Amino acid sequence: MRATQYEGNKTFSVITKEKLTPKNDEVRIKVAFVGVCGTDVHIYHGMMDKRVNTPITIGHEMSGTVDAVGENVTDFSVGEKVVVRPLDDRKVKASDKGFSHICEELKFIGIDSPGAMQQYWNVPAFTLHKLKENTDLKLAALIEPLSVATHDVRLSELKSNETAVVLGGGPIGLLVAMVAKETGAQVIISEVNPKRIEKAKALGFDVVSPVDTDLVAYVKEKTEGRLADVVFEVAGVQPALDIMTELAGIRSRIVVVAIHGEPKPVNLFKFFWKELKMIGARVYEKEDYEKAIQLITANELPFEEMITDVHPLSNIQQVFENIDNNPDGLKVLMDCQL
Amino acid sequence: MRATQYEGNKTFSVITKEKLTPKNDEVRIKVAFVGVCGTDVHIYHGMMDKRVNTPITIGHEMSGTVDAVGENVTDFSVGEKVVVRPLDDRKVKASDKGFSHICEELKFIGIDSPGAMQQYWNVPAFTLHKLKENTDLKLAALIEPLSVATHDVRLSELKSNETAVVLGGGPIGLLVAMVAKETGAQVIISEVNPKRIEKAKALGFDVVSPVDTDLVAYVKEKTEGRLADVVFEVAGVQPALDIMTELAGIRSRIVVVAIHGEPKPVNLFKFFWKELKMIGARVYEKEDYEKAIQLITANELPFEEMITDVHPLSNIQQVFENIDNNPDGLKVLMDCQL
Repeated sequence: MRATQYEGNKTFSVITKEKLTPKNDEVRIKVAFVGVCGTDVHIYHGMMDKRVNTPITIGHEMSGTVDAVGENVTDFSVGEKVVVRPLDDRKVKASDKGFSHICEELKFIGIDSPGAMQQYWNVPAFTLHKLKENTDLKLAALIEPLSVATHDVRLSELKSNETAVVLGGGPIGLLVAMVAKETGAQVIISEVNPKRIEKAKALGFDVVSPVDTDLVAYVKEKTEGRLADVVFEVAGVQPALDIMTELAGIRSRIVVVAIHGEPKPVNLFKFFWKELKMIGARVYEKEDYEKAIQLITANELPFEEMITDVHPLSNIQQVFENIDNNPDGLKVLMDCQL
Repeated sequence: MRATQYEGNKTFSVITKEKLTPKNDEVRIKVAFVGVCGTDVHIYHGMMDKRVNTPITIGHEMSGTVDAVGENVTDFSVGEKVVVRPLDDRKVKASDKGFSHICEELKFIGIDSPGAMQQYWNVPAFTLHKLKENTDLKLAALIEPLSVATHDVRLSELKSNETAVVLGGGPIGLLVAMVAKETGAQVIISEVNPKRIEKAKALGFDVVSPVDTDLVAYVKEKTEGRLADVVFEVAGVQPALDIMTELAGIRSRIVVVAIHGEPKPVNLFKFFWKELKMIGARVYEKEDYEKAIQLITANELPFEEMITDVHPLSNIQQVFENIDNNPDGLKVLMDCQL
């Protein structure tokens, strides 16, 4: 079988090795498609060299079919379509209060242990979710990032008569916007990159560039003065943090989806004055995966438009170099059987 | 009747004037006691000269008895003990989403219109809450600040099997700690001022100085590694903002009670990593007042210890000068009939 490996120093290799026999509680998956996540790009850039043990196969946004099952595995059969929820929460403790998806000793499969960018991948059976027979495996590679969005929207408690503003129209921002819109809420996307604005408009979204337009006034007008009920901060930049507290109306919720490595100035006075809530959100829980699977299987949202490129696994080096050279793209998939 | 007036320039006057006949929807209150709030001290310092129209009678933490009622007032009778919830929300709009206590055009009685530091005070009847006949009017002057605490604790959703850390052991911090403890939760107060530490210990609290003790390690030990379920940030200083995200365990809530005039650095990574929630809290709602009235009437918490001084109304200038010279005191009341 073919497998890719991140070797450090912005370098991937493609190697040939033996398929592994699944251990008692494992399933071997014949990987169909793997999406490239922002985290994978971070790894490629060497930003996570302290955490990853090179050489390592990375990748965690995937779809595939069961190829073999370990002795103790009774819930899955060869040929079934599946996706992996790449959270190894086996070291969950009482002090995690039941929130195993963010437990203190969580291991993320594809970062802390080998990932999906290979032809065959062995994973613990408890990480699997079944797909329907008719689920498109290409779209199914979006289930992992879509689950981030279903998690964010669920935690926001967005209701159908409310308005959500999504700051940032990249892949996660668009998925959050799709899920938010699917609840029936009014959705407004703020984005500065002209190509991404164009793309979001083509997907049917109300998109505003805060550079050209007074975003707060725009949202105020669209809500009869109520302002946003929910703001999703998916941009990860200070201007987004500055404007999120302006966009939020009385008792509104702000979901911080972007990862901010350093403490950043936040307008706490506005939190006090309007009794705002800020909600931190990380990865997903089982039910978020189920919701994402349901949305992908129904295929009524413009998921196909999210996939801007598909490459054979063997092109991995070029794929990552392309992503650096084309910041306008959305989701790039690798076809793991090519 | 006697009335005090803030004249600007750190100066109060005491004047004599006619009692006013209550308008149709008003009640005239014979004021019993008025507490001095941090906001009153801000006004005295000239920090709110842009907002207050001098000369003005200030004061909003009060108790009293009904002295006369306007023509349309049917719910109150002369002689009844009452407190005022000093929120004039008559300009509430649809865009306030029903949260009239923080409506965009809220007027705060005692800041934006005349307050309680006088012998008789006319207020709209809708601001009144009735007390029991046996309610102590001195303690009842604590109902307004106690309602801030019942509001904060209610919004935190603190449960009896949880642990709350209160950052700051001043008057509001202690009231928050009392209400939190009354829910059955474990409560730990963090305070740096030695006199306040002593006071909080005398009130029966578990108090830690973060200067002497590793507060995070202390809370971790007291919670079997779970850390705080709720952190109340009542200190209003950067070290409290820095430590609040360290003290909070997985999915914990941080209630920002202190007022931060400027944007301040907040560790958003911890919000993401532990899925924390930050909750802004301002003033109180009707039910928070009712809860505070119930607590004051039951008188089972050490409220008496909160009152460190009582002065005649005529001493107002000295009262404010004393507060500046004695930062260790807790609640100072004025006896409005002396």
